[in-house]
Amino acid sequence: MIFELHTQLQQDCFDLGSFPLCRLLLMNDSRYPWLILVPQSADVEEIYQLSDHDRAQLCKESNYLAARMAEFFKADKINIAALGNIVPQLHVHHVARRHKDAAWPAPIWGLGEAIPYQAKELERITQKVQQILKNFQEG
Amino acid sequence: MIFELHTQLQQDCFDLGSFPLCRLLLMNDSRYPWLILVPQSADVEEIYQLSDHDRAQLCKESNYLAARMAEFFKADKINIAALGNIVPQLHVHHVARRHKDAAWPAPIWGLGEAIPYQAKELERITQKVQQILKNFQEG
Repeated sequence: MIFELHTQLQQDCFDLGSFPLCRLLLMNDSRYPWLILVPQSADVEEIYQLSDHDRAQLCKESNYLAARMAEFFKADKINIAALGNIVPQLHVHHVARRHKDAAWPAPIWGLGEAIPYQAKELERITQKVQQILKNFQEG
Repeated sequence: MIFELHTQLQQDCFDLGSFPLCRLLLMNDSRYPWLILVPQSADVEEIYQLSDHDRAQLCKESNYLAARMAEFFKADKINIAALGNIVPQLHVHHVARRHKDAAWPAPIWGLGEAIPYQAKELERITQKVQQILKNFQEG
């Protein structure tokens, strides 16, 4: 089976590369550093439907990503969520939250309108995220 | 260090027992089957701050719980989230969503007012959840 990213994710996000298992997407909403992991191995909708191997790998990549986001974006809190009520393809949100961000302390989903990145901001965050990707080491 | 459940979780939830690592709570909101895992081992706020052992155990318990909730509650989707913007003690939401529930397809957080369980409903869901707990086998 060839992996294909859901069209809604293609529309809403920038594709910044891949970990060994997951595609790494940046949501085009400059209000929060908001990254999404999409396992590329299997056409599943729930974490529990992944193979044991892929689930362990997703946990590893999610865990690494969350820790690096906290550090790189000086986050006060990392929000992690697998929802998928609208886009069924399994994807896991990772959002670096700050006490002064647009939604704090509410969750970010469905809150107001996305503010797309300007070219310069996009370049800056893309560089940070690609640094995160580059530093990933298989444990 | 003695584990103590955050007072907000004590107020909002029923304590239904424990997996090897996590306390299992039922949110007192009858609109959705909404269970919460709280690791009892360490006073941390983020999944990445858990020890490798505890993180693997949390994944195992979360995964088991999600699969059983899908089955027991005939869910259309399981929503899993570690937010913690208001209650800092690490806790992971597991919500069995249905296409016809009060919030679908929106996430449930911050949406309307909780509808507390009536005694009979509470008894029924408590029995189901304790069956889930009882059937847990360490893999």
